[in-house]
Amino acid sequence: MPQSGIAELFTNLSKCTTGTITIMNTEEKDIASSSRAKDDMDRIEDKEGFSFHLIKKDASSEARLGKIKTPHGEISTPAFMPVGTQGTVKALLPEMVEDQGAQIVLSNTYHLYLRPGHELIRDLGGLHTFMNWKHPILTDSGGYQIFSLGDLRQIEDEGVTFKSHIDGSRHFISPEICIEIQEALGSDIMMCLDECIPYPSEYDYAKTSLDLTLRWAKRCRDAHTNRSQALFGIIQGGVYEDLRKKSVEEMIAIGFDGYALGGLSVGEPKELMRKITEFATPLLPQDKPRYLMGVGTPEDIIESVAHGIDMFDCVMPTRNARNGMLFTNHGKIAIKNARYRDDNLPLDSTCDCYTCRNYSRAYLRHLFVSKEIVAVILNTIHNVRFYMNLMEKIRDAIQNNSFNTFIKEARK
Amino acid sequence: MPQSGIAELFTNLSKCTTGTITIMNTEEKDIASSSRAKDDMDRIEDKEGFSFHLIKKDASSEARLGKIKTPHGEISTPAFMPVGTQGTVKALLPEMVEDQGAQIVLSNTYHLYLRPGHELIRDLGGLHTFMNWKHPILTDSGGYQIFSLGDLRQIEDEGVTFKSHIDGSRHFISPEICIEIQEALGSDIMMCLDECIPYPSEYDYAKTSLDLTLRWAKRCRDAHTNRSQALFGIIQGGVYEDLRKKSVEEMIAIGFDGYALGGLSVGEPKELMRKITEFATPLLPQDKPRYLMGVGTPEDIIESVAHGIDMFDCVMPTRNARNGMLFTNHGKIAIKNARYRDDNLPLDSTCDCYTCRNYSRAYLRHLFVSKEIVAVILNTIHNVRFYMNLMEKIRDAIQNNSFNTFIKEARK
Repeated sequence: MPQSGIAELFTNLSKCTTGTITIMNTEEKDIASSSRAKDDMDRIEDKEGFSFHLIKKDASSEARLGKIKTPHGEISTPAFMPVGTQGTVKALLPEMVEDQGAQIVLSNTYHLYLRPGHELIRDLGGLHTFMNWKHPILTDSGGYQIFSLGDLRQIEDEGVTFKSHIDGSRHFISPEICIEIQEALGSDIMMCLDECIPYPSEYDYAKTSLDLTLRWAKRCRDAHTNRSQALFGIIQGGVYEDLRKKSVEEMIAIGFDGYALGGLSVGEPKELMRKITEFATPLLPQDKPRYLMGVGTPEDIIESVAHGIDMFDCVMPTRNARNGMLFTNHGKIAIKNARYRDDNLPLDSTCDCYTCRNYSRAYLRHLFVSKEIVAVILNTIHNVRFYMNLMEKIRDAIQNNSFNTFIKEARK
Repeated sequence: MPQSGIAELFTNLSKCTTGTITIMNTEEKDIASSSRAKDDMDRIEDKEGFSFHLIKKDASSEARLGKIKTPHGEISTPAFMPVGTQGTVKALLPEMVEDQGAQIVLSNTYHLYLRPGHELIRDLGGLHTFMNWKHPILTDSGGYQIFSLGDLRQIEDEGVTFKSHIDGSRHFISPEICIEIQEALGSDIMMCLDECIPYPSEYDYAKTSLDLTLRWAKRCRDAHTNRSQALFGIIQGGVYEDLRKKSVEEMIAIGFDGYALGGLSVGEPKELMRKITEFATPLLPQDKPRYLMGVGTPEDIIESVAHGIDMFDCVMPTRNARNGMLFTNHGKIAIKNARYRDDNLPLDSTCDCYTCRNYSRAYLRHLFVSKEIVAVILNTIHNVRFYMNLMEKIRDAIQNNSFNTFIKEARK
């Protein structure tokens, strides 16, 4: 498929002359800076720190209904976090993310550390102010991204040295630096630095790696100074149940505000992912939120909720939207398909999103094949709303004691 | 500049599996179709057809304040029309276009005829319904696009044969077909098919071409059946004053709802463009709107208003936004410039747009260098709002008898 249409977006840069110099008054600059940051402080002033309240446990499964409180607002769980890697959920303005029902977004320590830099973001009032998102933010530690670099990184007990995927520059991140970065960003929930091992990994490697992750977790906990920011530990151990059990026990001993299952959804068979989730989740404390990192499909989310997971994140709704793959209650739609050429129906007639209320499949197909940016915006709105609707249905089912029926319907 | 970030948007299409077939109820499909179109009919039911009301003429210049009425609403003139070539203003949802103050958008007959096809759009309720734009639409005839194809087209008295820029397929458009297409689209203002000659063109060619354009204009007028849609004639004649004068006289004799100056802003020196505008505009009837096609920069717009132009269109605000070139009241900004790295000021502290109210230059620079789609959205919002603010200032100045002062300030 030719990419000229969208690639054009950033072309003709050579035509750009340097902007004329705007004379800035230093005082004006400081006022602008402090005023935006102050807005954020005002918002969080009356709010408490981090807490998790377990509202209800499902009778037929491990599914839980809960509420997380953070300095930037509450999150109803089970929750899905749209991914805003570089300080923006791709193709959506913050108000659009909010309008779809998202109560928290995920951003990425590794990416923001490299560009534009955590100190810059701190100096400009923190990540909430910088990206104009007034609700909670979870920052992933960057462990997954750094360990995905392969040969570009070197792990030692002290930390990890790696080369930037942007410009090849060398960097070093330790557990302490990882926390320092996340404290500078000011996220509501920080994640420990961990080693995320690939699938498959030998038992011995998984064991050695887990020990490193546990030592790093302790150092993250010790480095953590800003108590208004929560810190979650990450359970590793590959596909080995005894290692997962050890990981849970030792992480609980260190003590975190929440626990994540890491190292899953990294290429292992789906059955194995579900087996480990089913095994490890019930070992986690009932009174803390449980987060399954990087998961997943609607089906994976439903099954994992049944095993007791409270939080999810995945690029699937946003990335699929950019690729024209749209979720509906009747299955996925590849919008470029010729069968939608003259289809005047909305994407999903049961969907309440802005896209479905205002546009036909024929128009969405036209925009997509014409490589229009608005195609990406409308598709992303729909897919994120689809995920948010799914989470609302899950929460309603647990609330109404009908999760058992809900999951049976979903498995059909 | 590497384009991988944005180019990624439409990659991975190979990963897309074919969507599952959604069983559609034929009746449901028909209802959806007719309901959207009916909404549009309801909106236009109580409104009158096309009219132009000259509110005021400036004492110090040819500048005019006016109001155009169309079946889809009113347009205060002088007006700028954001360009929505393929049935979407690039990177903006219709509500965003509206929020910036736009009262009319321009779309393109040539592009929509080729993709998705005017018959498809007609069958789905017309262009307003298709693109979810509730306000007036002007459709350019496609003359400019077709004649830009160079060797890919062949002009005869009957019409023009050309090859699609999309797939190379052969097409024929005559004045009659051009009107048929625009009537199918249902735009509020249609444009005659004209031959848009390049700069420079010899006198003899300009004269022969003008004669063809005049014959075609007459045929467009005769082919025009839907009286709720206005039809504008296009004045040609290159840079030759006697041809421009002849063009004006003969177009007036045919009689149109408005008159456009075409064949300008096609590469000629700016002074020549202004000279022809200054010469030709006062020859046009006072009681009809005058539209300078494809113009232009803020400076060009101000000068042309002073010569009596009422309507403008240009890709500049939207295209520049995609290239990171942003208009401010203190000059243009190339947002990728390193000097904005830690700049916490808004793009323009005198601007009231969503982007300036919520984001710093530092954030906009971060999004732009990170090739995030939201960069394009925020930049486009700002640039379109800048143009709309300019038009509001122009109208206010004419209203308040201060256009003389306004233009002197602008020329500084």
